Amino acid sequence: MNFRIVSYILGWVLIIEGAFLLLPCLVGCIYGESAAMAYLLGALLCALVGTPFILKKPKNMVFFVKEGFVTVALCWIVLSLFGSFPFMLSGEIPHFVDALFETVSGFTTTGSSILSDVEALSHASLFWRSFTHWIGGMGVLVFLLAILPLAGGSQVHLMRAESPGPSVEKLVPKTRYTALILYALYIVLTIVEFLLLLIGKMPAFDALLTTLGTAGTGGFSFKNDGMASYSPYVQWVTSIFMVLFGVNFNVYFLLLIRKWKQALKCEELRVYFGIVLAATALIVCNIHTAGASIGTEIRDAFFQVASIITTTGYATADFDLWPTFSKVILVLLMMVGACAGSTGGGIKVSRMMILAKRAKQEMRRYLHPNRVTKIRLEGKVLDSEIIHTTSAFLVTYVFLFAAAVLLISVEGHDTTTCFTAVAATINNIGPGLSMVGPTQNFGFFSSFSKIILIFNMLVGRLELFPMLLLFNPRVWFERKRKVKA
Amino acid sequence: MNFRIVSYILGWVLIIEGAFLLLPCLVGCIYGESAAMAYLLGALLCALVGTPFILKKPKNMVFFVKEGFVTVALCWIVLSLFGSFPFMLSGEIPHFVDALFETVSGFTTTGSSILSDVEALSHASLFWRSFTHWIGGMGVLVFLLAILPLAGGSQVHLMRAESPGPSVEKLVPKTRYTALILYALYIVLTIVEFLLLLIGKMPAFDALLTTLGTAGTGGFSFKNDGMASYSPYVQWVTSIFMVLFGVNFNVYFLLLIRKWKQALKCEELRVYFGIVLAATALIVCNIHTAGASIGTEIRDAFFQVASIITTTGYATADFDLWPTFSKVILVLLMMVGACAGSTGGGIKVSRMMILAKRAKQEMRRYLHPNRVTKIRLEGKVLDSEIIHTTSAFLVTYVFLFAAAVLLISVEGHDTTTCFTAVAATINNIGPGLSMVGPTQNFGFFSSFSKIILIFNMLVGRLELFPMLLLFNPRVWFERKRKVKA
Repeated sequence: MNFRIVSYILGWVLIIEGAFLLLPCLVGCIYGESAAMAYLLGALLCALVGTPFILKKPKNMVFFVKEGFVTVALCWIVLSLFGSFPFMLSGEIPHFVDALFETVSGFTTTGSSILSDVEALSHASLFWRSFTHWIGGMGVLVFLLAILPLAGGSQVHLMRAESPGPSVEKLVPKTRYTALILYALYIVLTIVEFLLLLIGKMPAFDALLTTLGTAGTGGFSFKNDGMASYSPYVQWVTSIFMVLFGVNFNVYFLLLIRKWKQALKCEELRVYFGIVLAATALIVCNIHTAGASIGTEIRDAFFQVASIITTTGYATADFDLWPTFSKVILVLLMMVGACAGSTGGGIKVSRMMILAKRAKQEMRRYLHPNRVTKIRLEGKVLDSEIIHTTSAFLVTYVFLFAAAVLLISVEGHDTTTCFTAVAATINNIGPGLSMVGPTQNFGFFSSFSKIILIFNMLVGRLELFPMLLLFNPRVWFERKRKVKA
Repeated sequence: MNFRIVSYILGWVLIIEGAFLLLPCLVGCIYGESAAMAYLLGALLCALVGTPFILKKPKNMVFFVKEGFVTVALCWIVLSLFGSFPFMLSGEIPHFVDALFETVSGFTTTGSSILSDVEALSHASLFWRSFTHWIGGMGVLVFLLAILPLAGGSQVHLMRAESPGPSVEKLVPKTRYTALILYALYIVLTIVEFLLLLIGKMPAFDALLTTLGTAGTGGFSFKNDGMASYSPYVQWVTSIFMVLFGVNFNVYFLLLIRKWKQALKCEELRVYFGIVLAATALIVCNIHTAGASIGTEIRDAFFQVASIITTTGYATADFDLWPTFSKVILVLLMMVGACAGSTGGGIKVSRMMILAKRAKQEMRRYLHPNRVTKIRLEGKVLDSEIIHTTSAFLVTYVFLFAAAVLLISVEGHDTTTCFTAVAATINNIGPGLSMVGPTQNFGFFSSFSKIILIFNMLVGRLELFPMLLLFNPRVWFERKRKVKA
């Protein structure tokens, strides 16, 4: 284990977080809030702790899968710890576990909150919460790769550990340029949504927060009634952009370089759109009541489907009051999640496709035991390692899910609350059902349960293995003979 | 597809079912019930329909995996259809879907009932319900293999399709003798339990039904309050025999041939006992209230854990009233299920062990990407095909589970009811939680939902693929070039 390079990168991450913290400080100054001071202190703390680690560049810049995974996991923990200080310093979220929960929920783009009255927060804190979504959506290490020229050629291990999906494709041969292109696309889409919301006469600050939450597919609400009070236009724009941010960014890159056909042929994209449309149609049929406006029902259903499948978590309607069929559809969408290579969470559409094809292949094996069948995705034959790794992903996911539900259930809330609290956090959604429904919050959980849920959010955002690896003693204490190898 | 051999075996299965139906007829005669007539007619019907198919032995007795799977799936459907006639003929369960539900629930050893007042049934029908558990537990085709000398050497495909677990081991080289030994062990264990219950002064008829339900891990209750009114001795004997029937029968064979060490070393057995003890201890801690008898609590907890993990489904306590933690433990045990090669259902302990080891292996792969690691079970290195097939099993299981929950939810009952109704049927347990809790029944579901649940029970008992294969058109319509191959 190359600890030197790990701490070097961690140092840089802190410096970047310090710089980011100056933004809410600025927002606080504009609105003349005392919370600005808390963010300034937070920024200084990051700089103070981070600087010693970056002063000397490590001699050995090479690192492997293991270092990549451990670095990413530690970065996200460090980011969350330092990001939660201003909440405590400003006195707005005094309890440590609560502040950490809110920050992790922000960075992992979950959007679950422990606050019962978000409107009481300062503008600085409201901005910081939504901004953590934006940073976490594309990934802070991808950002680091874009701005910091890390020599050695092993940066792809960092990107692989942080980016969602069964396999990471580089858009261009150089990791650094791939990271730059991704952030450029991300920023352009963010600006477009912001402008469209301003056109809809949404107040600028609200439009900013909504955009940041949509872009990162985070979904912290900043109104006690969520998005319900905004105009239909604003709701439509938000829904459409949620869907757009759930698309694999490779598709946008293909559009950018004018490979229209290739972009539109994308199998994952078609299935993703298909699921969104089918789920919306089914929910509209299910919630339709005589006399009600079908337009409003379609808008609510589409908004909620877009919000849940992209794991954003905004709400325009209290879907906990919807019939069971609609609720089950939403819970299933929670698991499916958005496309690989997007800012969304969940298991991912392409993984689901691989798994479905694997199940079909297994059935065919009983029909023709001696025939070798191949699985294709996006027109290419999939490597059997990717297929088996994807199956192992589901296996691990199911085990983690079950363990988390068991641990949360110790507190004794109803089973739907336990089950959907875990589903909402491990898939980085935000709201669940029952006591964690869209009009509720996570504040009532004990610190023990909150820590479990914090772990869920991190493990979900980093797609299981980077976080799990931290618990493997072999990562920290290597046997001598292995160092030689 | 060799349809001739399939229909030949189906014919024999009907003849055997006809013979079996004479038993409840006899019970009816003893108690002087008119229902006896219904069972006599049922037996005649089976003989009448079955005989034409067995008159001429097919020339080509060879069949393959595909034929084995299709035969087993069709046999179970035919068995269930003909087994449900007496319920309708006697007028005790007049509606077809209800009668079919009850019969499938019996043969698949599920034990979910649509009856709200079981005590109103005739003795003949009560006996038939419990007897279907006993037949279904070890499997009707295993029985057929034991009594019918099928030449050709391909009978193992039948056994493989009907017997539970990730891989089927023959106890002795000949399939027929393996089937004979299995049934001999099964009958001996059944008789021992029956005698022990009689010693506990349980009424003979009650003891018979309890034993049949325990042996097949079925769990139809024949009292409206389940097993709650019986003495602690009877409850203990039942619990212990439920656990014993959930053990891999290979272990009993090893004990029989005095390979004590090998039997006790069985990894699956240890994990199974470990789970039973741990779950019991956790539930006792959770349900313990000051002033209550700890003895009763231990008995109830052990009984329920044994009943659920072996997928029997008897109840001495209304566990739907237990705290959430205990309920979640029970739901997780539903999924785990009993040992492979036992009469129990669920995913099976050995499959869970393979999956857990697979998840661990996947994690190690990130630590040492180039090292090839092997998975061992019972001291042997597992073939990678078994591992991947087991993962594909879980994948298919998860998809089917989700689809079933979605379809059941159309009716609009609460989410816990939908979720646990599917869990209770696909794992062949019996009771779930909420509206399908241990003091409730499945009668309120619509015919559509009942058909979904019937499919769940069959698909669960036959471990997914045999039933799914029936829906593949290639099974029925082969392309010409494939016939040549």
